[in-house]
Amino acid sequence: MAESPITPREKDFAAWYQDVVLQGDMAEPAEIVKGCMVIKANGYAVWENLQRELDGRFKALGHQNVYFPLLIPESFLKKEAEHVEGFAPELAVVTIAGGKELEEPYVIRPTSETIIGHFFSKWIQSWRDLPILMNQWANVVRWELRTRMFLRTTEFLWQEGHTAHSNHAEAVEEVLRILDVYAEVAEDIMAMPVIKGVKSRAEKFAGALRSYSIESMMQNGLALQAGTSHDLGQNFGKAFDVTFQNKEGQREHVWQTSWGVSTRLIGGLIMSHSDDRGLVLPPKLAPVKGVVVPIYRKEEEKGKVLEAAHRIAKELGAKVDDREGQSPGAKFFHWERRGVPVVLELGPRDLASENIVLKRRDTGTKEVIPQAAVAGRFAEVLDAMQKDLFNAAKARLQANTVTANSLGEVEEILKDVTAERGGGKFVMAHVKDDPICDARLKEFKATVRNIPLVDEYDGAGKCIVTGEEVDRRVVIAKSY
Amino acid sequence: MAESPITPREKDFAAWYQDVVLQGDMAEPAEIVKGCMVIKANGYAVWENLQRELDGRFKALGHQNVYFPLLIPESFLKKEAEHVEGFAPELAVVTIAGGKELEEPYVIRPTSETIIGHFFSKWIQSWRDLPILMNQWANVVRWELRTRMFLRTTEFLWQEGHTAHSNHAEAVEEVLRILDVYAEVAEDIMAMPVIKGVKSRAEKFAGALRSYSIESMMQNGLALQAGTSHDLGQNFGKAFDVTFQNKEGQREHVWQTSWGVSTRLIGGLIMSHSDDRGLVLPPKLAPVKGVVVPIYRKEEEKGKVLEAAHRIAKELGAKVDDREGQSPGAKFFHWERRGVPVVLELGPRDLASENIVLKRRDTGTKEVIPQAAVAGRFAEVLDAMQKDLFNAAKARLQANTVTANSLGEVEEILKDVTAERGGGKFVMAHVKDDPICDARLKEFKATVRNIPLVDEYDGAGKCIVTGEEVDRRVVIAKSY
Repeated sequence: MAESPITPREKDFAAWYQDVVLQGDMAEPAEIVKGCMVIKANGYAVWENLQRELDGRFKALGHQNVYFPLLIPESFLKKEAEHVEGFAPELAVVTIAGGKELEEPYVIRPTSETIIGHFFSKWIQSWRDLPILMNQWANVVRWELRTRMFLRTTEFLWQEGHTAHSNHAEAVEEVLRILDVYAEVAEDIMAMPVIKGVKSRAEKFAGALRSYSIESMMQNGLALQAGTSHDLGQNFGKAFDVTFQNKEGQREHVWQTSWGVSTRLIGGLIMSHSDDRGLVLPPKLAPVKGVVVPIYRKEEEKGKVLEAAHRIAKELGAKVDDREGQSPGAKFFHWERRGVPVVLELGPRDLASENIVLKRRDTGTKEVIPQAAVAGRFAEVLDAMQKDLFNAAKARLQANTVTANSLGEVEEILKDVTAERGGGKFVMAHVKDDPICDARLKEFKATVRNIPLVDEYDGAGKCIVTGEEVDRRVVIAKSY
Repeated sequence: MAESPITPREKDFAAWYQDVVLQGDMAEPAEIVKGCMVIKANGYAVWENLQRELDGRFKALGHQNVYFPLLIPESFLKKEAEHVEGFAPELAVVTIAGGKELEEPYVIRPTSETIIGHFFSKWIQSWRDLPILMNQWANVVRWELRTRMFLRTTEFLWQEGHTAHSNHAEAVEEVLRILDVYAEVAEDIMAMPVIKGVKSRAEKFAGALRSYSIESMMQNGLALQAGTSHDLGQNFGKAFDVTFQNKEGQREHVWQTSWGVSTRLIGGLIMSHSDDRGLVLPPKLAPVKGVVVPIYRKEEEKGKVLEAAHRIAKELGAKVDDREGQSPGAKFFHWERRGVPVVLELGPRDLASENIVLKRRDTGTKEVIPQAAVAGRFAEVLDAMQKDLFNAAKARLQANTVTANSLGEVEEILKDVTAERGGGKFVMAHVKDDPICDARLKEFKATVRNIPLVDEYDGAGKCIVTGEEVDRRVVIAKSY
């Protein structure tokens, strides 16, 4: 067999990631459009599965899908001061359309709070109009300087939920309910353990009162912010004059939330489970759960092997790789790189013994099982693989989470960590939620990932920057 | 009840359409973004249903979904001469990004043949790489001067299929196979009869060898091009140097196709079936198929009525409208305007008699049926409504299709037709496929909609413009 086209993780984690993405038919850089990628068939199929999981949960909670324009008048962005400051450097601007210079340029949405604020102000009059619970599946553009496929691209696909409420408590409930949905999909479907928490004020969404996130740890120990849910307070309500008459007949500004996950999740998925042989996909997300590879040397074996392969594949809802002119070895390699959870081999000897060989992608273990038992075993293996991937990721997260009680300790722990070399840790330390502290950590390229909602450590302690008492340790890490 | 917010069709068809869209919670103009709309909850849910129907059929035929960048280098458009001529006037151009003037501007995709051509040239080397069968669900922007919600908006949502083949015959097969998929979804799911045909050369897609379309007739007699499938020949293959080595070892340019339907279909759906009371949706596409409206005056009736309403709704997979503070009349009106196929009324008298009242949206007929029989009857009514809507639209198409044997006749038939006044016809006449003939028809604002694949008329005859012999009549109409 040819040398593996995949750089080992140990050698260069960043190069490994790029190789896995390419070899797994997940995406390819679109070098002619700055920082963009083409999402290829396997990658898009994973995205469709993620969409289905998320969309069903949003709808079950009463959200409706809608669609707002891609283009936003430039002036809209400026209505919320923090928002424009946060997004202005990343905007793509349309200045010419229909052959003419535009009087007012449009920006391509980097996110849709502003245009939605405009429509909320038209739609909301009374407390009876609330809550509004909406979501849209859309593309957005943010002109990033350093890009990486799936993790940070200038255009990406995402969902953005937008809700309006009559009071703050209900908005906060919504923000946390969605954070729970994100955590559930990450853990139960993607097999990717996450830490739910609130972002520091320095790291919150531009225009939010408070941002919440789920943070996960990649195999190189770097953190990935996998989803965010924002308590927007009345900031956009005030900027866009979104008011309602309350039950007492007084006008109030609405309380809003917004929340999103994107194709970035796929990057997290890849860096959570894949190995030096290529992509590993958790069975619940895998577009193809099983492939039967028929093996035969002689023409007279072919018919019987193929017939049995199709019969078994049908029973399992699996695929048969009956491509001509490809060796079984090339086929195994093909499906391995694409992360198919289970590959089954079936040859003339298996036909005679009424057995079949089942190979599990993550462990590489092979087992010979009776054909009569294959359906049950296939389901069991998929189920076990889903659980084992989660447990392995969880164990890795725990093994690479450490505590520190001084800035020096944090610096020492993280000093040699890079996306290429790995070695990253989640460092739990007491840090005050003050931009001064975030700035201090930035000096060694680390950030407060979030302040966990549930304290699993030792409670209150003194901030390692200011010495002031804070109520729990926060997660510090280098991150994507 | 308040005066209907919907203008009658007879009075002003265009105003009626706008009212139905707004009152049906389908869309709303986004006046602050030229020619754009917000797709609202009911409209987006219909789009999701259409997507599901189409997507399943594409995948069953071996197509895979992928995603290409929104932005295309301006120079790409210029590589195919006809293509740039067709699209240049409609482009939205990004000239500034990340705070800087771009060296080469990007255009927002009006369609993706060019960027896909670029990638095909990287991906395709050998006949073994063919065919490539891809589709993407995406937004596109075309700066149109005159816009109408769903029918023509500057941004719209669509799917665009792109395939590459090793020979022309196979590409043409693909083009026609997809045209059949479009016709099937239009007729069987949308209950909208269509005429399959080839566009005249003057009306083909900019860059295609041949374009095929499905054309449908709206209630005002205007034509709507509801979907197109293009035989691109080797035009983009040559422009983007997409070649493959054939089985004989020679290099050839690939043969490509592209095909698309968009949110425009929803406009066609509305103008096919809706009435002066609002939206009418064919049951197979309706996001909500049935709603039970509970009726009670006294508080002591409420519990029992609601309990029975929920029990029956659950059996039917229907919704219960148990909103407080809304009269039953207001609720009927609400669901009627939103096109729900069946509304069921349930009050204390029905509880006593163990009956329920079932009202069908399109005919307005009410029937009292035993609760024990409601599930079966509900399914029957939905089924009948689906068929009746198609048959009514088909009868209308036939009743408004006429033949003409001279330009004068065509002009006379179409002279008073407008989108507002209606009175449109499909005029079947012999016309040569020559831009001179198209230009002549344009003088009275009519176009050749297509040249039907199946001739249901009298075969060959003399072109009404040039007098030359042509093999069948074409469809001439005023159109959207």
